Amino acid sequence: MTEKLILHEYSQSGNCYKIRLTAALLGLPLERREYDIMKGETRTPDFLAKVNANGRIPVLQVGDRFIPESNAACFYLADGSPLVPEDRFDRADMLRWMFFEQYNHEPNVATMRFWLAFVGEARLSDLQRSLLAGKREAGEAALRLMDEHLAGRHFLAAGRLTLADIALYAYTHVAEEGGFDLGAYPAVTAWLARVASAPGYAPMSA
Amino acid sequence: MTEKLILHEYSQSGNCYKIRLTAALLGLPLERREYDIMKGETRTPDFLAKVNANGRIPVLQVGDRFIPESNAACFYLADGSPLVPEDRFDRADMLRWMFFEQYNHEPNVATMRFWLAFVGEARLSDLQRSLLAGKREAGEAALRLMDEHLAGRHFLAAGRLTLADIALYAYTHVAEEGGFDLGAYPAVTAWLARVASAPGYAPMSA
Repeated sequence: MTEKLILHEYSQSGNCYKIRLTAALLGLPLERREYDIMKGETRTPDFLAKVNANGRIPVLQVGDRFIPESNAACFYLADGSPLVPEDRFDRADMLRWMFFEQYNHEPNVATMRFWLAFVGEARLSDLQRSLLAGKREAGEAALRLMDEHLAGRHFLAAGRLTLADIALYAYTHVAEEGGFDLGAYPAVTAWLARVASAPGYAPMSA
Repeated sequence: MTEKLILHEYSQSGNCYKIRLTAALLGLPLERREYDIMKGETRTPDFLAKVNANGRIPVLQVGDRFIPESNAACFYLADGSPLVPEDRFDRADMLRWMFFEQYNHEPNVATMRFWLAFVGEARLSDLQRSLLAGKREAGEAALRLMDEHLAGRHFLAAGRLTLADIALYAYTHVAEEGGFDLGAYPAVTAWLARVASAPGYAPMSA
C-alpha cells in the first residue's frame, strides 16, 4: 500500500470500527479524522462535496480518492491478503455474509443500538418507536441465523477468519447495547471470542 | 464453469434478474426454478433446510452448494471476467456501489415497487403505510446520488460496464412501477439505455 490511508469516521460506529479492525489485523497504518454525526458534521456542504455526496461515514481515503461503504473499504484494504479467500466459491460466500450484514443485520442490530444507547428511547420519534418491535424481531432473526450457521463452524466462510467475520463482528459484539441478549446465542458468543483472539486484534475503543 | 448452475428465484424480483442479466452478459447457461413469494414458497421447511435458512430468493446453486444474496451470486458468476475490474481501487469502487444498492437503493426503490405494484396500496398495513413517505424520499435521494455521479460518466465504476451497473440497473429500470419519475434523472435515463445496449443483454421478461 503506497498511498496514504485516511479513515473519515465516527469512532463509536461499528461500520467505522470494521475498517480499523481490518487495518489492525493487516498491520496497515491508518490516519483517523473524527466527525460528530450527532452534530451533523457529515452533512456539511464541505463534507458532501469533498468526502462523500451520500453524507455518511465511514469513508476510506486512498491518496486523493475516496471509498464510501464500510464493506467496500474493508475489501480494498484486504484484497490479496488471507482475509479474502482465493477460492472463487469461498470469496462469494464471504461476500454473501457481508451483504447479509448490510441488509439484514446492520439495519436492525446497529439501528437498535443507535436508537437506544445513543439517541435514547425517550427522544425517538413516533415513527421510530413504531419500528422498534419489528427491528428487535429482525435483529433476533439475524443473530439466530448466524448462531445456527456457526454451530459446528469456527468462522462464517472459507473455514477461517475472513472479512465476513470482521463485518459481522463489529455490531454483534456490542449488540447488548441495543438490548439483544447474546447469552441466547452460544455459537455466536464462542465465535466473538475467537475473532477477538486473532493476532493483531484491536478493540473498538482503541 | 464446470458445475451446473441453478437459479432459485421469483422472476419478477429485480434481485433475481441481476443474476440472470449477469449470466446472459457472460453467456453462462442457468437453469431456473420459480418460487411464488406471494404464497410463501420460500418459507417452507424444505426451502429453509435445503436452499436458504434465511427464507429468501434469489439463491444461486452451484453444484450442491448455495449462494444467497444477489450481489454475492453475481460476483461468483463474474469473478475473473471483465465485469469485475482487475484494478484494486476499481474493484472496491464497484463493490461500493453494490453495497449502496443493498443499503440505500433496494430497501426504498424496490420496496416501493413491491408495495405499490405487487401488494397494492390498499392492502398495506398501517405500519407500511406510515413508511411510504420516508421510503419515497430515501429512494429519490438514491436516484439523485446516482444521477449526479453519472453526469459526465458512462458507467458507475471503472469507466466501463461492471457488476455495479447490473446491480443498480435491476430495480432502477422499473422504478416507475414504484411511483418514481425517471424523467427527473436524465443521466440515469441515459445510463439505463447504455446498459440495455450491452452485447448479450437480456430483458427482465426473458
